Amino acid sequence: MSYLDRIRECNEHDLARFRPLVVGGAGIGWVRPDMAAHLARHADVFAVEDSRVTLDPSLTDFASRSAAIARALADLRDGGAISGWRGELYPVKTAFAAKPLFQMERAAVPRLGVRAYGVHMNGYVRRGGAIEMWIARRSRTKPTFPGMLDNMVAGGQPIGIGLADNLVKECGEEAGIPPALARRAVPVGAISYIKEVDEGLKPDVQFCFDLELPADFVPRPVDGEIESFHLMPLDEVARLVAQTREFKFNCNLVAIDFLMRHGFISPEDPDYLEIALGLHRAAPT
Amino acid sequence: MSYLDRIRECNEHDLARFRPLVVGGAGIGWVRPDMAAHLARHADVFAVEDSRVTLDPSLTDFASRSAAIARALADLRDGGAISGWRGELYPVKTAFAAKPLFQMERAAVPRLGVRAYGVHMNGYVRRGGAIEMWIARRSRTKPTFPGMLDNMVAGGQPIGIGLADNLVKECGEEAGIPPALARRAVPVGAISYIKEVDEGLKPDVQFCFDLELPADFVPRPVDGEIESFHLMPLDEVARLVAQTREFKFNCNLVAIDFLMRHGFISPEDPDYLEIALGLHRAAPT
Repeated sequence: MSYLDRIRECNEHDLARFRPLVVGGAGIGWVRPDMAAHLARHADVFAVEDSRVTLDPSLTDFASRSAAIARALADLRDGGAISGWRGELYPVKTAFAAKPLFQMERAAVPRLGVRAYGVHMNGYVRRGGAIEMWIARRSRTKPTFPGMLDNMVAGGQPIGIGLADNLVKECGEEAGIPPALARRAVPVGAISYIKEVDEGLKPDVQFCFDLELPADFVPRPVDGEIESFHLMPLDEVARLVAQTREFKFNCNLVAIDFLMRHGFISPEDPDYLEIALGLHRAAPT
Repeated sequence: MSYLDRIRECNEHDLARFRPLVVGGAGIGWVRPDMAAHLARHADVFAVEDSRVTLDPSLTDFASRSAAIARALADLRDGGAISGWRGELYPVKTAFAAKPLFQMERAAVPRLGVRAYGVHMNGYVRRGGAIEMWIARRSRTKPTFPGMLDNMVAGGQPIGIGLADNLVKECGEEAGIPPALARRAVPVGAISYIKEVDEGLKPDVQFCFDLELPADFVPRPVDGEIESFHLMPLDEVARLVAQTREFKFNCNLVAIDFLMRHGFISPEDPDYLEIALGLHRAAPT
């Protein structure tokens, strides 16, 4: 196993099985046949054709689109077609900086194959010349990926909050990092992938941050999302990423990006370029 | 003007005008009609067809391929079809870590549209909380891009030397950085682009390194490639990259990658994701 195996696993998908979801003339998602059949039962909201699924063109603004989609999704949830309801709203946009076309329940985002954004933070300590990373273990009772390893702090990007503020909020809620310390986190880039999952498609982007922590800082689980934190030498992080599937799938990419940016992966590694390119996939078109 | 303008300029090309160069069954380059006409006069070495250019299949090993190509290229040079001869040999490979198929004169590499590799180093100083970068100005007498701005140290990757050793060598030759200091440079990733130039196509990769220098270190031009070095605040580097064309084209991408990795570009920048993806283009296929 290798870093590239983790990158490939995050990019397993067969787009031929999906049809584009079109809103206001723009393709903003991908719908699999199982979900298309569910959406077809809401013909007042979705026009389901063989080649595409279109939001009803009478829905022309944020409010009316959001309300109509919320009704359809709640019905699907009540009928058992959508599980894991979060009660958290995500914006849907043609690009990260674009005006939201509508907002929708987080649990349904992969079911419509809409791009989701998140913030992931590598927390690390310098000890002598060496770097050690704080790695989180997710709660065993979390509905998604229970008990798996995670970046020190990570969260989805909901509507109505900026990236930096969201990161500071997650730092406090997940790891007990005070705001003044969390605000020192440095934005260092973004990773992307296109993964087919049970629920649908995740053509997602994670904004990456690095936070160098004082050697005596010890994170503590606050909101119950994380079970425990572990300070690990980089070679242990590298082993867990490359040789195991203990990390939640996309956290591997954030860690690999950290390892590459901090010189832990040699440019003479035969996979180096494929790793550098593989962390930065364009959205499907 | 913007960072994205620089990235787009490094990716201007019309591949439809090129035909693949095939060696031993593998596509390893791209030839424009002007060069194809020249190669057609060496039918013992190159089979020029409308759809592709193929190295004569009787040339099956490194030595015979390199010798035959060297003869053809020297003849084209003598006839005026290749200028700027360097007397420096580059390996030609299907991937960076692959065994070289042959070696060839550096000046002819873009004429055959073969991927070239280089090492580029960002030299920087931390002053208080701020970063300043050492920027090089190329000699006014250099045949390529005279007088333009450049990364502190940069060089092509010739045959027969590793990336780290090549960087240490370039650090000494271009900037007077002693080997013990140069070896502290950290590999931080790679950028790639596909640019059509007067000579042909450059589908190239630059391996990027960061070197934090002591605040009192002053680089000095040694081999005459560089005219002068200038220590600049990051906002001045950012301005020169985004608002001017003073940098040699590909050095912009290395600087943008540095600005992104060191938190100088906000993830709320509407271009952020396009920049992150745009620095990492796959080779043309």
